[in-house]
Amino acid sequence: MNLEGMRVMGIDPGLTRCGLSVVQAGRGRAILPVSVGVVRTPSDKDLTERLLRLSVAAKEWMDDYSPDVVAIERVFERGQVSTVMQTAHVVGVLVLAAAERDIPVYMYTPSEVKKAISGNGRADKKQMTTMITRILGLTEPPKPADAADALSLAVCHCWRAPAIVRMDHTGLGLGAKTSGVRGQGKKR
Amino acid sequence: MNLEGMRVMGIDPGLTRCGLSVVQAGRGRAILPVSVGVVRTPSDKDLTERLLRLSVAAKEWMDDYSPDVVAIERVFERGQVSTVMQTAHVVGVLVLAAAERDIPVYMYTPSEVKKAISGNGRADKKQMTTMITRILGLTEPPKPADAADALSLAVCHCWRAPAIVRMDHTGLGLGAKTSGVRGQGKKR
Repeated sequence: MNLEGMRVMGIDPGLTRCGLSVVQAGRGRAILPVSVGVVRTPSDKDLTERLLRLSVAAKEWMDDYSPDVVAIERVFERGQVSTVMQTAHVVGVLVLAAAERDIPVYMYTPSEVKKAISGNGRADKKQMTTMITRILGLTEPPKPADAADALSLAVCHCWRAPAIVRMDHTGLGLGAKTSGVRGQGKKR
Repeated sequence: MNLEGMRVMGIDPGLTRCGLSVVQAGRGRAILPVSVGVVRTPSDKDLTERLLRLSVAAKEWMDDYSPDVVAIERVFERGQVSTVMQTAHVVGVLVLAAAERDIPVYMYTPSEVKKAISGNGRADKKQMTTMITRILGLTEPPKPADAADALSLAVCHCWRAPAIVRMDHTGLGLGAKTSGVRGQGKKR
C-alpha cells in the first residue's frame, strides 16, 4: 500500500476560528507540512455572512492546494448548545466545498486524533502540540491551538489511510465517501 | 408597514427529507402559496453526496423563485445525536446558499412556528396541517409532513416580519442578518 504523495487537508472546524492545514505523505510514516493557517470570522457578523466567508476561504485552500482527501473533526454534543450547532453548520459548509470538488471527506473524533498522534486518546493540548511539532519537524510549535489541531487531523488521516484502504471503508461511518480512495496513493 | 408582495421561502431542514416552500404575502394577513415540495436524498449515499444534492436543489429553488427572505427551522439538540448533527450540517449548506445570493435568513423554533400558525406552541401535527391548509386556502392538506412544515415556516415569517422590521432586529438571535430587511415590502 503506497500512499506516498497523498495530500491531506486537515480542518478543525469552528465559526470564530477555523484551523486549516495541508500535509503531504512521504515515505513510510514520514509526513511533510505544506501549509497551515486559521480563518477567523467576526462574532458581530451574522451567521450567513460568517458561513459565506468560511466557505470562500475553504474553497480557496482546496483550489490552491488540491488535496486528495479532506479530514474534518467530527462534531460532538459537548459544550454550549449554540456553539455545537454553529460548528455543525460550519462542517456542513466545509463538506459541501469538498463535495463540489469531488474530494472525499473523512471525519475523526478528537480522541481518535489524539490516539493516532500521541498513542493516548486523552492526551492534553501540550502533549499534542509537542508531538505534532516533532512529527512534522517544525522549528517551532504551531499556533494557535486550532492550527495545531488542523495539522493533527491531517496527520491522523495519513496514518489511518492505509488501514482504511485495506478495509475498503467498512465500518467507517458517515465520514467515508463511496469514492473515498479516489486519488489516494496518487503520485504528484 | 407594507410587506405585500414579499416572497418567503420556508425550509424544514433534513438530510433524508427536506421540505421546501415559497409563499407570497398578500394584503393584511393574506398569504398566497407559490410552491411546495420535498427533496429526498438516499440514505445509502455518503454525507458529501447528499449535502451536494440538497445544496443543488435549494439553489435551484432560490434561483427559480427569487425569495426575498429564507425562513429555516432552528435545530435543537433533541432526538438522536447523529440525526441532529446531520440536520445541522444541512442547515449550514442551506444558509450558505442564501448567503451566496444575499438573501437574509431567519430561524424559528418549532414552538414559535406552532404558536404563529395555530396560537398554540404545542399544537400537534394534525392541528398544524389543518391550520396551514385553511390559511393558504388549499384544496387538500399538503403532504408529507415536511411539506406542511416548510409552508408553516414561511407563513410564520410573513406574520412575524412586520414586528421584526419594527424591532429593527433587536434580540433576534443568530437568524437575523444585518441586511435582514433588504427587499422586504418590495412590490413585484
